[in-house]
Amino acid sequence: MPAEAPKTPLRLGLAGLGTVGIGVVRIVQQHADLIAARTGRPVVITAVCARDRTKNRDADLSGYAWETDTVALARRDDVDVFVEVMGGHEGAARDATEAAIAAGKDVVTANKALLAHHGQALALAAEAAGRVIRFEAAVAGGIPVIKALTEGLAGNQIRRVMGVMNGTCNYILTRMQSAGLPYEQVFEEARQLGYLEADPNLDVGGIDAGHKLSLLAAIAFGTRVSFEAVELEGIGNISIDDITLAADMGYRIKLLGVAQMTGRGLEQRMTPCLVPADSPLGQLQGGTNMVVLEGDSVGQIVLRGPGAGMGPTASAVMGDVMDIARGTRLSTFGQPAASLAAPQAAKSATPASYYLRMVLLDKPGALAKIATCLGEAGVSIDQMRQHRHEGTQAPVLIVTHKATRDDIDHAISRFAGTGVLVGAPVALRIEEI
Amino acid sequence: MPAEAPKTPLRLGLAGLGTVGIGVVRIVQQHADLIAARTGRPVVITAVCARDRTKNRDADLSGYAWETDTVALARRDDVDVFVEVMGGHEGAARDATEAAIAAGKDVVTANKALLAHHGQALALAAEAAGRVIRFEAAVAGGIPVIKALTEGLAGNQIRRVMGVMNGTCNYILTRMQSAGLPYEQVFEEARQLGYLEADPNLDVGGIDAGHKLSLLAAIAFGTRVSFEAVELEGIGNISIDDITLAADMGYRIKLLGVAQMTGRGLEQRMTPCLVPADSPLGQLQGGTNMVVLEGDSVGQIVLRGPGAGMGPTASAVMGDVMDIARGTRLSTFGQPAASLAAPQAAKSATPASYYLRMVLLDKPGALAKIATCLGEAGVSIDQMRQHRHEGTQAPVLIVTHKATRDDIDHAISRFAGTGVLVGAPVALRIEEI
Repeated sequence: MPAEAPKTPLRLGLAGLGTVGIGVVRIVQQHADLIAARTGRPVVITAVCARDRTKNRDADLSGYAWETDTVALARRDDVDVFVEVMGGHEGAARDATEAAIAAGKDVVTANKALLAHHGQALALAAEAAGRVIRFEAAVAGGIPVIKALTEGLAGNQIRRVMGVMNGTCNYILTRMQSAGLPYEQVFEEARQLGYLEADPNLDVGGIDAGHKLSLLAAIAFGTRVSFEAVELEGIGNISIDDITLAADMGYRIKLLGVAQMTGRGLEQRMTPCLVPADSPLGQLQGGTNMVVLEGDSVGQIVLRGPGAGMGPTASAVMGDVMDIARGTRLSTFGQPAASLAAPQAAKSATPASYYLRMVLLDKPGALAKIATCLGEAGVSIDQMRQHRHEGTQAPVLIVTHKATRDDIDHAISRFAGTGVLVGAPVALRIEEI
Repeated sequence: MPAEAPKTPLRLGLAGLGTVGIGVVRIVQQHADLIAARTGRPVVITAVCARDRTKNRDADLSGYAWETDTVALARRDDVDVFVEVMGGHEGAARDATEAAIAAGKDVVTANKALLAHHGQALALAAEAAGRVIRFEAAVAGGIPVIKALTEGLAGNQIRRVMGVMNGTCNYILTRMQSAGLPYEQVFEEARQLGYLEADPNLDVGGIDAGHKLSLLAAIAFGTRVSFEAVELEGIGNISIDDITLAADMGYRIKLLGVAQMTGRGLEQRMTPCLVPADSPLGQLQGGTNMVVLEGDSVGQIVLRGPGAGMGPTASAVMGDVMDIARGTRLSTFGQPAASLAAPQAAKSATPASYYLRMVLLDKPGALAKIATCLGEAGVSIDQMRQHRHEGTQAPVLIVTHKATRDDIDHAISRFAGTGVLVGAPVALRIEEI
């Protein structure tokens, strides 16, 4: 279907010849027949763009026109779809994407930062021009989660979206646990393995994963992308003690993204959380990604797969390209950008149990003072443990009953006045799954 | 997108007002605004069809025309999409689906049996008429796996598709393990809970899951649906001993569907298999479904969710309906039906380790005779255990090195001549994941 499908080739202009770009070249070259059989027309690359033409990229690029200017690539007459796999949310990526839309091209992008910052403006421009922007590769690598949410679950009011969407953070956290190593050492391992972005804070600070969450939230809740409203907390303060204590209680610590619509507005968080060890999220090891979609009719859908890498990311790019080749036309965020609501941001409005770890001076009444602070902030205690220790400092673990983040923060601000606290406490939400 | 989308309502004719049909009614009624916002046009039900009009269905059907003849419903002028959620692979469901296509309607169906038996003919007819047949609800309930495979992973050569796609069987097997109960007792429980089809062999015989596997295989490998080539084996011979022995070795027993293209042809099996207990498939409890998709670029994608029930199945139906409302047009099996290859069926061509459990007469040399049979059939032994026992019958467990199913069957056929075997051996494939 359809018998009247156009047989003219769909022509790609490929901006970026890094790992993902070369992955796209390989699929287009190696699977030309399969792609034509599935879409009803050939898909070809006509032109490419990258800074250094002389670099050996282990791919035959001789058949493609070469542009050094990305904007020029985006405007070429022999390009139908501008494929952006270069990255960066300003500069060339942004300019060229805008130029492509203005020149009447469809856009397929892996650029989560660009869309997290400029998604609404780009979507409005594309829709005014009758063009599409597709971005499956921008979220959770090879997992077709944008498609599942936008199309497969379109009949659902989405209740909650959750995900482990930064493989590097999950690698670090699971490696700390399996090897019993401190954060700093595993971070250094990850750097040497090439798992970290040039600015590692994009990974371990939760920014990269926060970008992805903001895109999922826009689709799920029909709201404009609002990355700036994502509560971000990285994994840099997670100690091996936290991981061990959490494990003793049957939990794992994950950098978990959660978006949900509450009575007070849209809650978006990308923070380290405790999740049950025997849940699909708790069982997730290493660099693998997982997204959990909850809808009012469908219940809970869990998607798991590789979140990065040449093959998986190129697979996602090609899924979008082939949709365009088949004639599928979708709004960028699943409904016209002009109809997306301005989200009212809510800071962790939903109550949860919290894990609190702190170090107290080993004085009489120290624990009681902390307990009093919690009580005065309206936070009640489910579990409290003070382990046997040497010296004058006592490690204390508290699990609270359900409380809001504001109440927890309020209690913590009172701890300082007690004079018994050593350093800053760690407070992690326990997410119910 | 697109600005020029038609604003006229998409009109559904709904055949079947059982659980799934009422689920569809509820979504259409409760989410009218959300559906229109996402698809750009209203989706309405104009007519319905079911045998008994007087039955209380706990839904307001007063606004819909009522047909008692399904074919008449399919041909109504005020129906754009024929939604078939009645079931059965002959009779009314088949006649009406054919009539709908002939009358120029698109079709959305939850009917796996119909497509497993007549999918190729129906797809050819639909494509000749320029209509689509969509069937997300037919496979793995609410999990958008047809979409993931047909669209999201379209750029991949698919290596293997696996799945636990009959929730009743997985409920029975996991309940046997958790409660330590025999098959017959849990089967009876499942019957009383209403988990079993009127003909329970559709579930426990693997037929229902085999239907689903045959549909996935057609999309994955570009071959015509060939349900008759699926190797089917039910779970009726799985004993609590098998479950316990498998668990002792770190495995779980699942009714697992596997489809893969081999050098000798398309292998499709729906059989009880051992899978690693710590794999996503091994961890799957109760009635939940899971599908694993493996592609050359993407690697392994795992999808998990509810495989049946009102909400999940209706969610899948509505995903297809909303695709049609958005103007998405796809070949039934992901490429034109006329281009699908006739599959060459291969019986378990890929070698695997096998789990063999049997009871031997406790005579000197009994084990040696069995070992000799295996050796003569070219099957070598990885592990062999004879547990302490009372009486004259010895339970024996053997795990083989990799062998083909033919070799295993050949060895088993030789066991009979030894005179030491009591009853029939159980032979289960150990699937590598």
